[in-house]
Amino acid sequence: MNKPYVMGIDIGGINTEFGVVDVRGQIKYKGKFPTANYTTAESYVNTLAKALNNLVSDAGGKDLFVGIGVGAPNGNFYSGNMEFAPNITWARDGAVPLAKMISEATGLPCALTNDANAAAIGEMTYGAAKGMKNFIMITLGTGVGSGIVINGNLVYGSDGFAGELGHVIMRRNDGRPCGCGRQGCLEAYASATGVARTAREILSLNKDRESALRRIPIDSITSKDVFDAAVAGDKVAKEIFEFTGSILGEAFADFIAFSSPEAIILFGGLSKAGDLLKKPIEESMKKHTLKVFKERDEDKTKAKLLFSELKDAEAAILGASALAWELK
Amino acid sequence: MNKPYVMGIDIGGINTEFGVVDVRGQIKYKGKFPTANYTTAESYVNTLAKALNNLVSDAGGKDLFVGIGVGAPNGNFYSGNMEFAPNITWARDGAVPLAKMISEATGLPCALTNDANAAAIGEMTYGAAKGMKNFIMITLGTGVGSGIVINGNLVYGSDGFAGELGHVIMRRNDGRPCGCGRQGCLEAYASATGVARTAREILSLNKDRESALRRIPIDSITSKDVFDAAVAGDKVAKEIFEFTGSILGEAFADFIAFSSPEAIILFGGLSKAGDLLKKPIEESMKKHTLKVFKERDEDKTKAKLLFSELKDAEAAILGASALAWELK
Repeated sequence: MNKPYVMGIDIGGINTEFGVVDVRGQIKYKGKFPTANYTTAESYVNTLAKALNNLVSDAGGKDLFVGIGVGAPNGNFYSGNMEFAPNITWARDGAVPLAKMISEATGLPCALTNDANAAAIGEMTYGAAKGMKNFIMITLGTGVGSGIVINGNLVYGSDGFAGELGHVIMRRNDGRPCGCGRQGCLEAYASATGVARTAREILSLNKDRESALRRIPIDSITSKDVFDAAVAGDKVAKEIFEFTGSILGEAFADFIAFSSPEAIILFGGLSKAGDLLKKPIEESMKKHTLKVFKERDEDKTKAKLLFSELKDAEAAILGASALAWELK
Repeated sequence: MNKPYVMGIDIGGINTEFGVVDVRGQIKYKGKFPTANYTTAESYVNTLAKALNNLVSDAGGKDLFVGIGVGAPNGNFYSGNMEFAPNITWARDGAVPLAKMISEATGLPCALTNDANAAAIGEMTYGAAKGMKNFIMITLGTGVGSGIVINGNLVYGSDGFAGELGHVIMRRNDGRPCGCGRQGCLEAYASATGVARTAREILSLNKDRESALRRIPIDSITSKDVFDAAVAGDKVAKEIFEFTGSILGEAFADFIAFSSPEAIILFGGLSKAGDLLKKPIEESMKKHTLKVFKERDEDKTKAKLLFSELKDAEAAILGASALAWELK
C-alpha cells in the first residue's frame, strides 16, 4: 500500500506549527505550541514528540506515514541539524541534531531544511512551480531568503547552506549595513524592514515632499504602512515600491545569468504588495537582463515572475511536509 | 565490450581542433583545420566529417567510439545547435543544427555545448575537479565564461544557456561598457581585455606615476604586457592585478552565496598570471564572503580557489570529448 500521509513541521521563532498532509496537499490534522518556552533541545523535542505522536494516532497510526519534514531556521539538509539559530534559545549555541531526535522520538524517518528551501519544495509539490524543473523561490519577509531548484532538485551545495540570495551585494559603494555584518546586501533593501528603511531615507532626504507617511512617527513606519499609503495613491509610497522592485529586478537579472530559471516565484509578507511590486520588478528585469535570456522581441524576460499559490496560513506546513515525500 | 574512445571537437574562431581520447584522458590521434574558410554550415561540416571519419578509421573504426562531443561558441546542449555565433561566418545568422549534422555525417551520436561548459566537464572528468560534485569553472580569456556544476551535473537551466557569469553586474554606477551592450559586467573588468582597460585607466588617471608600461603605446598594452611588467616588479602592473583579483573575489563571494561550491576553478589565458591573481582573489573572497561560507576561524572561505590541471594545448579537445562519455 502506498502510504497516504506525511507530517510537516514549521519551526518559527514564536510558534511551532505542524500538520498531517495528504498527497493532494490537504492538511488533515494540525496543531501548534510556542517554540520559545524551552531551555534545552531535549525538553523542546519532548513536547513536540508528544504532540506529533497524538496526531499520528488520530490519523490512523504511523504505518500510514512516509515520514516527517521540518522547516527550521538555519536547518541543514545534509546533517539534519539546526545550527546556531540566533533567535531560538535552545538552538542558539551550537548544532542540534533535530532530525535524528525527532526520528528517534516518533519512529518515523525525518528530513530537515531551512524555511526558504521548504517553501521552494512546497511550491514545486503543491503550488505555482508544479512541473517546473528550474525555478528560484524568493521569500520576502523580515529578511530575504531563497530556495533554488535546478533539474528538479533543491540546490544544497557542498555544505548544505547554498541559496543565500538575500546576501548577494547590490550596492558595493556606500551600501546599507546588513544584519550579516556586511554592506549592500539585497536583504537590506528588499525585505519588509528594507522597505521601511527606504521610506525613512526618502522622507528625510526630501523634507519638502508631502506624503501620508508623514503622519506616522518616522521610526515607526512599517512596510504595511507604506503599502496602505501606496494603495491610497500616495506618490512617495509608490516610489518606495518602485525603488524596491527596481533593486529586486537588478538582482533577478544576475540570478538568471546563473541558472536561467523558468520562473522566479515570490513568497512572504512583502509579496502581498502584488502589482505595486510586480510591475517595477518586471520593468527592471527587462532592462537589466542579458539579451540571450529575453524573448526574441526583447519585450520580456524568458523567466516569468510569479507569486506563490500556497495559502499563507498553510504554506509553511505544506513546504515542510513536501520534503517528507522524498524520504525512503 | 566497453567502447574505449570518444571524439572531442573544439570549434574556435580561428581553428577547429579535434582528437580521439581514451578513458584516461590521453589524446591518441588529433587534427585541425581553419574554421573560417566556409560560407555555409554544410560545407564546413563536409570538411569536418571527412577529417573525423579518417581519424575514426585510424583508431580502429566507429564501433570503438562512444560518441562525439563538441565545444562551440554559443553551443546549446538541449538543442544541439550553434545559435547566432557572432565570430563565425557560417553560424552568424541563425541556428545551425550542428550536433545532428555531425551525427548524420559520421554515424556516431553527438552532443554539443559551449566552450566554458565543455571546460567544466573536462575538468571534472580528467582534471582538478575529479570527484567533485559542486564547483564553478571560470574561464578568463578574451571574455569571461563559466560552467557551473551542481550535484555532479552541468547546469544548463530552462533554455540551455545558464552559466553566463561573465555578465553579472559588478559596478552598477558608471560601470564600464561591456560587449553585451550593458554596463559594469564582470567580463569588462576581469577578462584579458579588461586587464588592458584597467592598465589604460590607471596610467591615464595617474600621469605622475612611473611604470615600465609607459614604454608601450597606451592603446597597445595587452594583459601579457601587464603580466611581464608585474613579474619584473612594476608596482602599477601589480596594482592592476590586485584590482582585477579584488573584483573577481567580490564576484566569487556572490557565486558562493548561490551554489556554495567546493571549489572555483580558473582556466584560460589570464589564469596563467598565477599567484599575481590568486592572492588578491583569495584576499577579496575572504573579505566579501558571508560568514556561513567561511571556515570557523574565518581565515578562509570553504570554497577553494584552484587552477585548471589540464594542459593548455589539450584542454579544449579534452573538455569537448568528456561530454561524449555521457552519451548513450
